[in-house]
Amino acid sequence: MNFTQERAEEGGVTRRSFELSVDGQAVPAVIWSPEGAKGPRPLVLMGHGGSQHKKTAGIVARARTYARKFGYATLAIDAPGHGDRISREEAESLGREVGARVRGETSAPMDPERLRQMGQRSLKAVPEWKAALDAVQGLDFVGAGGPVGYWGVSMGTAIGVPFVAAEPRITAAVFGLAGLREGQAEFEAAARKISIPLQFVFQWEDAVAPREAGIALFNAFGSAEKTMHINPGGHMDIPNFESGDWESFYLRHLGVAADAKTRELAPA
Amino acid sequence: MNFTQERAEEGGVTRRSFELSVDGQAVPAVIWSPEGAKGPRPLVLMGHGGSQHKKTAGIVARARTYARKFGYATLAIDAPGHGDRISREEAESLGREVGARVRGETSAPMDPERLRQMGQRSLKAVPEWKAALDAVQGLDFVGAGGPVGYWGVSMGTAIGVPFVAAEPRITAAVFGLAGLREGQAEFEAAARKISIPLQFVFQWEDAVAPREAGIALFNAFGSAEKTMHINPGGHMDIPNFESGDWESFYLRHLGVAADAKTRELAPA
Repeated sequence: MNFTQERAEEGGVTRRSFELSVDGQAVPAVIWSPEGAKGPRPLVLMGHGGSQHKKTAGIVARARTYARKFGYATLAIDAPGHGDRISREEAESLGREVGARVRGETSAPMDPERLRQMGQRSLKAVPEWKAALDAVQGLDFVGAGGPVGYWGVSMGTAIGVPFVAAEPRITAAVFGLAGLREGQAEFEAAARKISIPLQFVFQWEDAVAPREAGIALFNAFGSAEKTMHINPGGHMDIPNFESGDWESFYLRHLGVAADAKTRELAPA
Repeated sequence: MNFTQERAEEGGVTRRSFELSVDGQAVPAVIWSPEGAKGPRPLVLMGHGGSQHKKTAGIVARARTYARKFGYATLAIDAPGHGDRISREEAESLGREVGARVRGETSAPMDPERLRQMGQRSLKAVPEWKAALDAVQGLDFVGAGGPVGYWGVSMGTAIGVPFVAAEPRITAAVFGLAGLREGQAEFEAAARKISIPLQFVFQWEDAVAPREAGIALFNAFGSAEKTMHINPGGHMDIPNFESGDWESFYLRHLGVAADAKTRELAPA
C-alpha cells in the first residue's frame, strides 16, 4: 500500500491517506493512528452519513480522540457516490438533497426507487470496506487478528449492517439513525444475521427514520447484547454525551492498545 | 441527628445508620461516604425496588463505588412497608409475591387496586424522602446547596417520579423498569412536571412494564435531556454495563467531590 499523504494532526495523531482499487474503481481512504505507533492495536472502521465524506468533522474528532486516549487506529473510506468520488458541484447538490430530507422538508423521503438505490449502494460498498480492512490489517501499526469495531449511523448503518453481517472480523458495532421498513427483506436478513455486541443510537423525532422503523431494526438485530439509546430531537441532534457512551462501548469490547497513554480510563 | 451505627466498609467507605421520624413513623435510613470525609459533596439518593430494602446489594455496590471513585455521599431509606419497617416473615412473603410478578408468573400484575396501593405508597414515601434529604444536608460531610442525584428503578421509579417532581433540590435522576398506564393521571402529571436531565433504563421483555407503557413514560417526562436505554431481557436482567452509564451520567451532572480520589475519571 502506498500512502498518498502523511500528516501530523493535533494531539500526537498521524493521518495517512491512500487509495484502494476495487472492481476497477478508485476508493479514497484514510487512516488515523497515534504518532509513531508500532505494533498491533484495536481498529475502528467509521462509515460516514449520506452527503458526507471520509473526513467529516465527527469522524475526525472521534479518530483523534480514540488515537490519543486508547491508542486505536481509525479507518474511513468515501462511500460510493460520495466525497472525492464525485465533483464539488455534485457534492453540494447531494448535500442540499440530504439536508432537505433530514430536516423533514422532503415528502416521501424513502420511496421504493430510493430504497432500491440505497440497496445498490450498500452492495457496492461492502466489498470496498472488505478491501480496505484487508489493506490496513497488512500495516505493521494495525496488524491482523486484533479487535475491530465499526461505527456508522444513518447511511453508515445502511451500509454497515450488510457489511458487518458479512464480515466476521468486526467484533462490536455502533449503528443508529436508521430503521427497517416493509420491503427491505435483504436488509432485515442482514440485521438478523448480526450477533456481535451493538449500540444503536436513535433520535425520537427523526424525519428520516420513524420510531416504529427504528424499533423494528433494533428488534431485528440478532445480537444477545444490543442497547438502543433513544434521545429527543431530529436526525442531526444526537447529544454530545452519546460520544462518551461510544467510547465506553468500544473500551469494553475492543480494549485499549498496548501503548495507550491513558490506561486508567479503561473500565475496572 | 443521632447515628445508631457507624461502620467501616471495604475500600475506605463509612456507612452510618440513623432513624427519621416522619408523621409519627420511624423511617430507617443509611448514608455512605468516603472515610474521613469533610465538607460538602455531591449526594445521590437511592430508592430500592419492590420487596427490597435500603441495603440491597445493588445500592451497597453503587454507594461504595461512588464514594471511592467520585467522593459522593449516598443516602438510602426503607420504603413504606419494606425493609426494617416489616417483619422478616412479611419481607419473605413480599419477596415471593414480587418475585412471581417480575418472572411473569402472576397474571394481571397491575390491576386497579394494586395501582391504587402503589399510588398511596408513593404519597407516603415522598415526605419521607424530603425529611431524609433535609436531615443529611445538615451533616458537615454532605452540606446543603450541592448537586443531588436520584437513582431508583421499578418501585424506585414509582416513588421517585412524584418525589423528584416535588423536590427542586434534585438535579439529575436515573429511572427505569417502569411504565405509564391508563388511569395513572397523577403519575403522568408528575412525570410531565420533571425537567431535570434523566437516564431511563428499560428492559424489552419486562413482565412488569410492557414496552408501550415504558415508551409512554419516557414520552411523558418533561425533561429536554432524557435518554432511554433499552436492553433485551426481563425485569432482573439490566446488563452490568448500564452501571457504567449511570456513573457517566452522574459525573456529567453532579461532578466529583473536591476530595475525590480519581479526578481523571471525570469526562473531558
